[in-house]
Amino acid sequence: MTVYNFSAGPGVLPATVLDQIQTEMKSFNGSQMSILEISHRSKQYEEMELEAEKDFRDLMNIDDSYAVLFLHGGGTLQFTNIALNLTDKYHHVAYVDSGHWAQKAMEAAQKIDGLQVDRIGSSDNNLPKISAPDDDPLDYLHITTNNTIEGTTYHQIPNSTQPLVADMSSNIMAQPYDVNQFDLIYAGAQKNIGPAGMAVVIVKRDRLTSHPELSEIMDYWLEDQKHSALNTPPVFCIYAAGLVFKWLKKFGGVPAIYQQNLEQAKLLYDYVDNSKLFNNSVAKDERSLTNLVFGTGNKQLDQQFIADAADKGLVNLAGHRLVGGMRASLYNAMPTAGVKALINQMKQFEMNHGGF
Amino acid sequence: MTVYNFSAGPGVLPATVLDQIQTEMKSFNGSQMSILEISHRSKQYEEMELEAEKDFRDLMNIDDSYAVLFLHGGGTLQFTNIALNLTDKYHHVAYVDSGHWAQKAMEAAQKIDGLQVDRIGSSDNNLPKISAPDDDPLDYLHITTNNTIEGTTYHQIPNSTQPLVADMSSNIMAQPYDVNQFDLIYAGAQKNIGPAGMAVVIVKRDRLTSHPELSEIMDYWLEDQKHSALNTPPVFCIYAAGLVFKWLKKFGGVPAIYQQNLEQAKLLYDYVDNSKLFNNSVAKDERSLTNLVFGTGNKQLDQQFIADAADKGLVNLAGHRLVGGMRASLYNAMPTAGVKALINQMKQFEMNHGGF
Repeated sequence: MTVYNFSAGPGVLPATVLDQIQTEMKSFNGSQMSILEISHRSKQYEEMELEAEKDFRDLMNIDDSYAVLFLHGGGTLQFTNIALNLTDKYHHVAYVDSGHWAQKAMEAAQKIDGLQVDRIGSSDNNLPKISAPDDDPLDYLHITTNNTIEGTTYHQIPNSTQPLVADMSSNIMAQPYDVNQFDLIYAGAQKNIGPAGMAVVIVKRDRLTSHPELSEIMDYWLEDQKHSALNTPPVFCIYAAGLVFKWLKKFGGVPAIYQQNLEQAKLLYDYVDNSKLFNNSVAKDERSLTNLVFGTGNKQLDQQFIADAADKGLVNLAGHRLVGGMRASLYNAMPTAGVKALINQMKQFEMNHGGF
Repeated sequence: MTVYNFSAGPGVLPATVLDQIQTEMKSFNGSQMSILEISHRSKQYEEMELEAEKDFRDLMNIDDSYAVLFLHGGGTLQFTNIALNLTDKYHHVAYVDSGHWAQKAMEAAQKIDGLQVDRIGSSDNNLPKISAPDDDPLDYLHITTNNTIEGTTYHQIPNSTQPLVADMSSNIMAQPYDVNQFDLIYAGAQKNIGPAGMAVVIVKRDRLTSHPELSEIMDYWLEDQKHSALNTPPVFCIYAAGLVFKWLKKFGGVPAIYQQNLEQAKLLYDYVDNSKLFNNSVAKDERSLTNLVFGTGNKQLDQQFIADAADKGLVNLAGHRLVGGMRASLYNAMPTAGVKALINQMKQFEMNHGGF
């Protein structure tokens, strides 16, 4: 049975990447040592890390005025780190409240002594506007480009007079964004980048200054000086991410995968919009390409759909426990065959459960 | 050519563990999903994590009065976390200065506002005694059981009237220690536990209290409540560590590997002590079983030895840049054949370079 994994993360990875990891697990680059055994002070590691960084810069069009950091701690530690590293000037930031993870990011900032944290908008209805008053300078205005739980996305980022910081955890490299619009972008790896256990930070170098009061690995300036290897880095995650970057470059880069993501999302949203059983209540211009939420409006029916689908190899379709329903996460590595199989399953279920 | 990897970490892993990782890379536990794609909220993950924790508790004889945490951030973030989580009562700690990493741990604590940090002893000569004045209660007395760079170890831990915290990064599970002597033990994974990208923390539960002022993933109490899955955990590291634990249990546990480690270290130290070319200046009762340092006293000759050995597949023998010379890290996964091959190479080199 073919298994399609719709998990919101850790999620599906490209099959050819898994092939390569498997093939070279016992000898990385001819070394007769596993990538898991390679010293982070070795030439093999340094070359691997540099290449991963270069490929990532190519994919996202990142120039040298930005640092690219591969860090420990997932997105959650970065919630804290951005608020500690970027707030020296005004001690004032604002967070656009577009959903659960935006709130988590804001709550982490609220813990910082002496930092004023404003909340912009509310996630109760449509996505709040990305804007903050011009006359009150902020260290940054924080946004979450894609809301993993709610299934919403800011497809266009307006120019802001305030410096933008973006959590792109769940749609980095899924659609094109102009890095130059942001002072900082961060993302947990475990969705479109690679295995869990790493976060990627892209940050304007002119925003970085030494923070000797912080734990060394929380100081972005120092991590940039040390090329993300201040302490032993998450070597395997960087390696696997590097393979994903190479796979995506070969695929045609972000513009090409964006086309595929648009097509896949259209297939599923079109089906849902025409369904008599399933529905999606997100405004059309805010719908996520990576996390597609839908439901029948009936808890028991949702549970049954999720169980039936799992029996057919369509797994991890349960919505987040906070919102219920279903969620299909169509990250870059999801093949279109998986989306079609899901839609077939939905059609079958709709036939059997009286959507008409 | 057989390659033996003497890296101080990330270092050698058991061959059978690498075999298993390779074999099941594309289907974890029959799921037809890679371990890299498994959701940390899935049953598969939870079972895997529980089993890894259980095996680790068995190996180290850890009862339920201690939490076992698998955390992000390596040992370096724990330098900070221990000082933030365990100092509520006296705001006073002491660090035994037994070497470079002990100093790094101490420096992280010195950054904490309002925390008095005493330095005990000095790493300039023999290992300082593990003791602090009785009359002045400490939140903890910090020690480093094995000094990776200096090649020294506290083989016996004296009973202390002060609560002990130990960095065991480079000799955890290499020799038996009684967990009950410590309030907290921590270790970066990348030596005797598994791949880089994780730290393990063993901590007395009655020392933990909620720390809502901290970044959530730095709050040990909260991580214990959330079973180390407060945010997406380093899934692959936990999985690989679990395989290492199973391998070690099958080997006979810590007592059995300790015997092998003693034998391997004796082979190498005996050779060095009888050599006219190589020497080791560490006091015999302080010598490390995991990081064996030696040298010729001649920088150029050391370099040549390291290069010649690498040509023969004996790699990563350079000493730490701070001390120079050579270092053979004999972690649990190093086969005795590797130690014998190293000694043969040393004999050959001694013959060719006039040790007599």
